[in-house]
Amino acid sequence: MSYYFSKILKNRNFDEAIGQVTVELKKEGFGVLTEIDVKETLKKKIDVDFKKYKILGACNPHFAHKVLTKEDKIGVFLPCNVVVEEHENDEIEVSAVDPIASMLAVENKGIEEFAKEIQQKLKRVIESLE
Amino acid sequence: MSYYFSKILKNRNFDEAIGQVTVELKKEGFGVLTEIDVKETLKKKIDVDFKKYKILGACNPHFAHKVLTKEDKIGVFLPCNVVVEEHENDEIEVSAVDPIASMLAVENKGIEEFAKEIQQKLKRVIESLE
Repeated sequence: MSYYFSKILKNRNFDEAIGQVTVELKKEGFGVLTEIDVKETLKKKIDVDFKKYKILGACNPHFAHKVLTKEDKIGVFLPCNVVVEEHENDEIEVSAVDPIASMLAVENKGIEEFAKEIQQKLKRVIESLE
Repeated sequence: MSYYFSKILKNRNFDEAIGQVTVELKKEGFGVLTEIDVKETLKKKIDVDFKKYKILGACNPHFAHKVLTKEDKIGVFLPCNVVVEEHENDEIEVSAVDPIASMLAVENKGIEEFAKEIQQKLKRVIESLE
């Protein structure tokens, strides 16, 4: 099964894409709690060249609190990641994790409805990008 | 299926547990790239009281590079999270994600061996804690 939603942005550079996705995440109640610059990290740690690739950790605190209350260890899947990357042809692609896919192994009916709501929110974020 | 490995630490307080797991992660080649203080975040964002609960984002750059090269969107599952939490009885529990469980939806035989190696490394980290 697919495990992410993604979109190619035609008229944005890398930093603009980060800015736009941050704004759209906010509209759906997500703050960006973490940001990993993969290109910089790989260069610094193992001296490897990699494309521009950032992992944003997005968290909707209301939903996070609800799922943490129902499933104590769900934090190993939080926050929800959004990847922004620059392909070789300079196109920018933004991809959000599908929380239903990442939480397949969690057998707790109590969090399904929340995972579905979060899934729809992240899907809207990706669809809204231009 | 279970989606994490965990251990209760008998003789550690919360901060000591964070320190110990960081050291053990380093022995297996993981750096801690992100740290989310869930208690602080929930208090600040939605004024909710929660137990001490931190999510550490652990990354082994050699493995991260290998899997990113084979599966471009795998970044939505990175880094590997380790949760440190304080239960009501003051016991500290440390839980690491099982990467095999979190990547169930990824249909790529090429990353299976790496996911298994990472799984074993994280399992050793948890087993080594005291």
